[in-house]
Amino acid sequence: MHAKPTTPPNTHITGVGGVGVRPVTSGLIFLPGQDEHAYEDSDMGPAFRQRRYFYYLSGVNIPGCAVTYDLRSDQLILWIPCTDPRTVLWYGRTPTLGEVKEKVDVDDVRYIKGLAKYLYVAVAGSGQTLYVLHEDQAPRFENGRVKGTITIDTSKLKPAMDAARVVKSNYEVSMIRRANAVSSAAHKAVLSRLKKLTNEREIEAIFMASCLAQGASRQAYPVIAGSGPNASTLHYDANNESLAGRQLVCLDAGAEWNCYASDITRTFPISGKFSREAKQIYKIVQQMQEECIHMIKPGVVYYTLHLHACRVATKELLKLGILQDGSVEEMMQKGTVAAFFPHGLGHHVGLEVHDVSGKERLILDYNVGQGSRGANKGGNVKKREFIGSAHLASLYREHMALATAGAAVEPPPYHGRQKLERNMVVTVEPGLYFCKEYLQAFFLDNPLHAPHINKGTLARYWDVGGVRIEDCILVTDAGYENLTTAPKGEEEMLRFININNNGHH
Amino acid sequence: MHAKPTTPPNTHITGVGGVGVRPVTSGLIFLPGQDEHAYEDSDMGPAFRQRRYFYYLSGVNIPGCAVTYDLRSDQLILWIPCTDPRTVLWYGRTPTLGEVKEKVDVDDVRYIKGLAKYLYVAVAGSGQTLYVLHEDQAPRFENGRVKGTITIDTSKLKPAMDAARVVKSNYEVSMIRRANAVSSAAHKAVLSRLKKLTNEREIEAIFMASCLAQGASRQAYPVIAGSGPNASTLHYDANNESLAGRQLVCLDAGAEWNCYASDITRTFPISGKFSREAKQIYKIVQQMQEECIHMIKPGVVYYTLHLHACRVATKELLKLGILQDGSVEEMMQKGTVAAFFPHGLGHHVGLEVHDVSGKERLILDYNVGQGSRGANKGGNVKKREFIGSAHLASLYREHMALATAGAAVEPPPYHGRQKLERNMVVTVEPGLYFCKEYLQAFFLDNPLHAPHINKGTLARYWDVGGVRIEDCILVTDAGYENLTTAPKGEEEMLRFININNNGHH
Repeated sequence: MHAKPTTPPNTHITGVGGVGVRPVTSGLIFLPGQDEHAYEDSDMGPAFRQRRYFYYLSGVNIPGCAVTYDLRSDQLILWIPCTDPRTVLWYGRTPTLGEVKEKVDVDDVRYIKGLAKYLYVAVAGSGQTLYVLHEDQAPRFENGRVKGTITIDTSKLKPAMDAARVVKSNYEVSMIRRANAVSSAAHKAVLSRLKKLTNEREIEAIFMASCLAQGASRQAYPVIAGSGPNASTLHYDANNESLAGRQLVCLDAGAEWNCYASDITRTFPISGKFSREAKQIYKIVQQMQEECIHMIKPGVVYYTLHLHACRVATKELLKLGILQDGSVEEMMQKGTVAAFFPHGLGHHVGLEVHDVSGKERLILDYNVGQGSRGANKGGNVKKREFIGSAHLASLYREHMALATAGAAVEPPPYHGRQKLERNMVVTVEPGLYFCKEYLQAFFLDNPLHAPHINKGTLARYWDVGGVRIEDCILVTDAGYENLTTAPKGEEEMLRFININNNGHH
Repeated sequence: MHAKPTTPPNTHITGVGGVGVRPVTSGLIFLPGQDEHAYEDSDMGPAFRQRRYFYYLSGVNIPGCAVTYDLRSDQLILWIPCTDPRTVLWYGRTPTLGEVKEKVDVDDVRYIKGLAKYLYVAVAGSGQTLYVLHEDQAPRFENGRVKGTITIDTSKLKPAMDAARVVKSNYEVSMIRRANAVSSAAHKAVLSRLKKLTNEREIEAIFMASCLAQGASRQAYPVIAGSGPNASTLHYDANNESLAGRQLVCLDAGAEWNCYASDITRTFPISGKFSREAKQIYKIVQQMQEECIHMIKPGVVYYTLHLHACRVATKELLKLGILQDGSVEEMMQKGTVAAFFPHGLGHHVGLEVHDVSGKERLILDYNVGQGSRGANKGGNVKKREFIGSAHLASLYREHMALATAGAAVEPPPYHGRQKLERNMVVTVEPGLYFCKEYLQAFFLDNPLHAPHINKGTLARYWDVGGVRIEDCILVTDAGYENLTTAPKGEEEMLRFININNNGHH
């Protein structure tokens, strides 16, 4: 369980309103934790997943709790469910008030049956404002008794907590580091049995088993084990095809540790040896990633790394002859390389694998991503960001205009784009993909891009499928620290594979 | 994908109303499938799990579909989402209308964008009744256009489908058989590496990896790998304790296959050898299970098996001296053995691990179970049934009164209790547990039971924790077939462990 936040949310609530807004110094923050629930018409339910904002304040990963924070008195109270001895037979021992108090750094731990009265006194009785994330997370008071006397604010808490969450505490960094260590070991377990594998599902099995055996029972996101053309589906998760005849596997998988995510991708040759084409593409992605990681330090504006990766890719794909008939500058103006690198370079990692970025954005606008598969009330958390050629072209033109005009015209934060700060954790995950349907639908017959893509040369790369390399990078005072330790890079990875697959037959 | 049901639901709707109710011969059944959704304030979501009633009619396990069945024209239509080429890049290839038609035995497959108009014509236009499971599953029509002309029935569909679901088709039996084969192999994988294990989590890891590698990506319920006293927590799922010093592990784990469940429990000695006390308890549970399984055949009233298991347990615990000072008959009248065997002997297995039982019940009343952790709209699906001493005593007295009075007084189905029929699948899962908190709270100081429990003898059994043995049994014309093939029974299981743990160090 983690320590009481050293930067309590009230100090941040002061900030989010911007200059001139009166600091919030009283009121009550109320965050309900997640309850367990069953599927419709069933007695089974999804695996328990704690609400992240609740966990951020409480550090408690059990169902049926709530937390309150009184801004005036600086009192953080955890409310836990009460249990009955008979339930031990059913669900096992649950901690008592005393046991929880010892583990969690809060001011008080109380049984949740007393919460309604506490809230009534604190809010309805004293006229304090109640701060909640969403209207449906507000507690229900009996209307008749308190009507007209409750002020509920749903606008200030989330931005305040997001501003806090985007920069990680040292405790949080240690959790993300541990999640990365567990997942890196699981990636090694897969690489160590590479030559025995016959189907994508065995890769998922080895990865999951390694995480489970290390005590990480939840994945931060569904395992993606895509071989051959499946690697060009960015959120492939069927993981059920034969590896026969496939050149590469792209394994994007990371476990959680105490609710904190890791996010790691490795792409490797199934046979232990790259084909000529696979090696060419792998080395370009390796260069994109290495150069971008080396540029990371406080003050760097993250989207410029994305543009750098695009420039490297454009230059190298021109050398291979997949791109043709134009300069790097011309291609960047058109965004043509987005045909092969159609997603953002990275995102924040924290309690969410795609963690909140606060008021600013890393690359494009919020909600530009095409991949959303559900209603995210928050709005500023999204899946791997989709970047089409038009997005890339406009980002590049905007960037060049800024660079030409000089910093005086555009003060930080650069059209709302985020500068990296110490203790942010971001992924750097360039990729190059050969997705036939996507290229055919948007590029190969498009008069803007078609002249720059050599279809004959391209045809030799369909079987490569896709390559992505992804690490979690901590921003430090000195620059960065790579939290991911799974082997990568042509030399190091092939050496690891060869050493660990000898004598295993 | 499974065949169109040979017993379409309308034939059952005729039956559920009871004698004298007019058969339903027209109307439209509408079942929406499950959509994918994200957690609150997140872009991640729970693993997709198809709605079971939808799957029962459609056999389709992809998100965002719906199915309609027109009772008058006998037309079953599957409605699937339409996809865009760009989404291939994101989520991969989704099947076309033609591909789905080839795989699924329905009358027609159409894109779901046409569903609203179809429903409007079929229901509002023609005045047919719309049959849905729950009010919130009814489609939303524009109020202004059809107000007052729609009849929605939420009472008939569920009992009709439950009556159908409780007796399995041969297709369904083959799915449950396959789920059992996969899970039995996974149990064997655990037993084969027994002597290398150091922590409960490694057991879960081996089990899950075996299922995943066999292509079973979902478990029917959370894996329970409880060692020592954890085995006496019936729904233990922390699975994170050291095996050092523990005598037994109780592993209750079963995968799904194409949405159909398996449910298997094995209890085994970690060292490969039983302690004296563990062996005594294991052999009693083995006898309880073997005798009950051998009694299974069409026409047997299931709850009588539960009473038989209780009688065996009472008699054998008397022999061990854990129970004392009373006859088997006297103990059964008091229900004392429920102290050690506090749950039902079994349940149906199908699309749910605790599957619907239709209008009747297997053992106690619906909703008697104490273990419910969520709102189950259906009401007649429940977790492993809790049976306290008072429940057992009243069940036994009721049974004896019936037996004395003779069948003339109580015609089938025996106070609503269920007779087994051909092609039902039920578990037989007796257990004996030594749960300190439960025994202390309800038995050891209870004047009704305390005189019959020898605390001194009992003390020697705390370390045994608990033993449960569970198989999935298919009711056949000839009697039964055991669908579970994982090794069990003192001799067979120890032989398997010894053979498969040699030379593995």
